[in-house]
Amino acid sequence: NDDITKKVLAEYTHAQRMVTHEAQLAVIKTITTNRKIPMNVLNRKQAEAPDTCEVIVNRIGTAPGMWFEYGGAVLVSLPGVPFEMQALMDDVLLKLQQRFKLSAIFHRTLMTYGLPESILAERIAPWENALPPHIKLAYLPNPSTGVKLRLSVYDVQSDTVAAECEAQVARLRALLGDIIYGEELDTLEQTVGKLLREKGATVAVAESCTGGRIASLLTSVAGCSAYFKGAIVAYDNAVKTSMLGVRLDTLQTYGAVSLPVVEQMATGVKQALRTDYAVATSGVAGPDGGTPEKPVGTVCIAVASSAGVASEQLYFSTDRQRNIERASASALNMLRITLLKN
Amino acid sequence: NDDITKKVLAEYTHAQRMVTHEAQLAVIKTITTNRKIPMNVLNRKQAEAPDTCEVIVNRIGTAPGMWFEYGGAVLVSLPGVPFEMQALMDDVLLKLQQRFKLSAIFHRTLMTYGLPESILAERIAPWENALPPHIKLAYLPNPSTGVKLRLSVYDVQSDTVAAECEAQVARLRALLGDIIYGEELDTLEQTVGKLLREKGATVAVAESCTGGRIASLLTSVAGCSAYFKGAIVAYDNAVKTSMLGVRLDTLQTYGAVSLPVVEQMATGVKQALRTDYAVATSGVAGPDGGTPEKPVGTVCIAVASSAGVASEQLYFSTDRQRNIERASASALNMLRITLLKN
Repeated sequence: NDDITKKVLAEYTHAQRMVTHEAQLAVIKTITTNRKIPMNVLNRKQAEAPDTCEVIVNRIGTAPGMWFEYGGAVLVSLPGVPFEMQALMDDVLLKLQQRFKLSAIFHRTLMTYGLPESILAERIAPWENALPPHIKLAYLPNPSTGVKLRLSVYDVQSDTVAAECEAQVARLRALLGDIIYGEELDTLEQTVGKLLREKGATVAVAESCTGGRIASLLTSVAGCSAYFKGAIVAYDNAVKTSMLGVRLDTLQTYGAVSLPVVEQMATGVKQALRTDYAVATSGVAGPDGGTPEKPVGTVCIAVASSAGVASEQLYFSTDRQRNIERASASALNMLRITLLKN
Repeated sequence: NDDITKKVLAEYTHAQRMVTHEAQLAVIKTITTNRKIPMNVLNRKQAEAPDTCEVIVNRIGTAPGMWFEYGGAVLVSLPGVPFEMQALMDDVLLKLQQRFKLSAIFHRTLMTYGLPESILAERIAPWENALPPHIKLAYLPNPSTGVKLRLSVYDVQSDTVAAECEAQVARLRALLGDIIYGEELDTLEQTVGKLLREKGATVAVAESCTGGRIASLLTSVAGCSAYFKGAIVAYDNAVKTSMLGVRLDTLQTYGAVSLPVVEQMATGVKQALRTDYAVATSGVAGPDGGTPEKPVGTVCIAVASSAGVASEQLYFSTDRQRNIERASASALNMLRITLLKN
C-alpha cells in the first residue's frame, strides 16, 4: 500500500496503463502457494508495472524490478527488501554494462587471517613499495573475515594485466604463507569445510562465549553435513560439567575462562560427538563479567585433534558483538591451521 | 599505507602540517596494549590529522574521523571499517544538526512478527485508510525481524505530533495484539529475554537446520546468562539420538524433519539442560535434501514448557540462508507467544 515509487515513475514517464507481468505473477503464485498463505489483491497488484518500463523479474520476492529509459536517462527501481535488491543488482549491472561503454577495472583479492592490519602492512612493505604505480593495493579489515588484500588496476587498456597481478600475488603468497586462507568471497568456514572434506574428517564445536556462532557459521555452508556433526553450547557452567565432562575442580581452580577448561571442552565434545576434530571457546564477551586478571575481551580457544589438544588466550575489545565475532573467527582460523598441519 | 584520503584532504584544505591528536593516540595505545600487539609507526601515524580539521575521536578503532569546513562546505571523513564508521555517525549527525537548521522528522515504530506483509496490510487497511494525510505509514519487512511498521510525520511544525501518533499506535495495538513484539530497535531475542527474566525462568535450545543461529541470537543479548543455559546443535541424526534422546524408531518412521522428532528434541534438551522452556528446529534448509513431501524450505518447530510441547510445520523459500534466518526468527516468535500464555 505504501509503494508510491511505481505510481510516481509511471506518471513521470507518461505511462498509458499498468500491465500485469506474467513471469512475475507466476513467482508470486509460487511464493504464496509454498508458504501456504492466500494470495490477495495486494499480491496480485505487485506483478503490475507501467507500460513505459521493462520488468526485471524478481525470482525470490514479490516486487519486480523496473528499468525505464526516459529523457535520455536510465531509471532503475528495485525492491526495498535488502536481499531481494541485492539479487537483482547482478541483472542491473549486466544491463548497464551493455547499455553504456564502461572502462574495465581489474581486481585480484586475497583473504588473510591472523595478523593485525598494521603488522601485516609492515611485513609486506618491501613488496608493496616495489609495486608498479598502476597496480594499487587496498587493505580491507573486517572482524569476522580478517584483512582482505585487494590489488586493483583501473581503466585497464592492456591484456597483460591479469598475468601481471598473478605474478604479484605469487610473491605475496610467498611472503604470507598460511596467513592467506583464500581468495575473494572465500570465508574461513568454507576453507575449513574444504579442508575437512579433503581429509574425509568430521568436526564438533563446544561454545561458551561465542554462544552458537561458530556452529552457525559452519552450517551456513551448503553441504556441511558431510563433516559437521553438531555443537554443544555450554553457556552455563553446569552444562560444561554435565554435557562436556569439564571437571568441577578445574572450573573452581582456574575459572570458566581458562586454558585448562577450554581444553577439556574441546576434548569433551570431540568424545561426546565422536569426531576427528573439535574446537572450543570460553571468554568474557562483556559488557559485564570482567575482572582485573580477565578483563572483558579475554577469550580462550582450544582445538582438539588426533595429535592432542592445543589452546591459546587472546584479547579483543570491550564490545560484546565484536568480541563474539572475533572469537568465532579466531577459533575457525586456529582449526584451519591445525587442519593444515595434521 | 593505502590511506590517501587524509593526504588529499590536507592538500585540498591547504593544511600547514599534520598534528598528533592525543586522545586518539591514547585510544590506539589502549587497543594495541589490550590486544598485546606491538605499536608501530603506522599505528602512531593514524593519530595524526591535518591542522585544518577538527578530529572526531574514534573510541573503538585506530583511525579518527575528521571534520573540515572549507570553501563554505562541510567535509567529513570517517574510518572505512563499517562498524567504526557507524559508531562515529552519531557524533557526526549531532554536529550536522547543530551546524545546519534542519526540519524535524518524527518517527514512531512498531515491530511485528507472524503475519506476511500482504495479510498484515489487509488486516489494518481500515485503520490505514483513516490516517490523517500528514501521518505516513511504511511497511519494512525483514526475514529476521518481521515487518516493521513505521509512522512518520515530515517537516514537523506542531508539538502535538507525538501525542497524535501515540493515539494511532494505540489503535494499531488493539488491531494487532500479540503480533506486535516491540518498538524500534527491539529484537525478538531481546523480547524473549525480557519475558524470561520477568518470569525468572530459563531456556535451552535444540537445533538441527538452524545450526546454532537461535543460540547465537539469544547470546547476542547482554546479560543472557540469567536465563539462557545452553544449546545442543544436533546436525547429525546420531547426535539427535545420543544427546537429545530422540527415539530411533521415530526418526525412521517420520524422518528427521517431522513434528514428532522436533517435539522429542525440545523435550529432550529441556530435560538434559534442566530448563523451564525449550525450543527446537528441524528442517530442509537447502539447496539439497528436498523431497516431494518435504521440499527445501520445510521447517518444523517445537516449544516445550511446563504445559507440554507444541509444534508446527512452516514453509519458506529455496534460499539456504533465508530459510535459516526465517526458521530461527519463527522459533523465537513461537517461544515468545508461549511465554505470553504460560
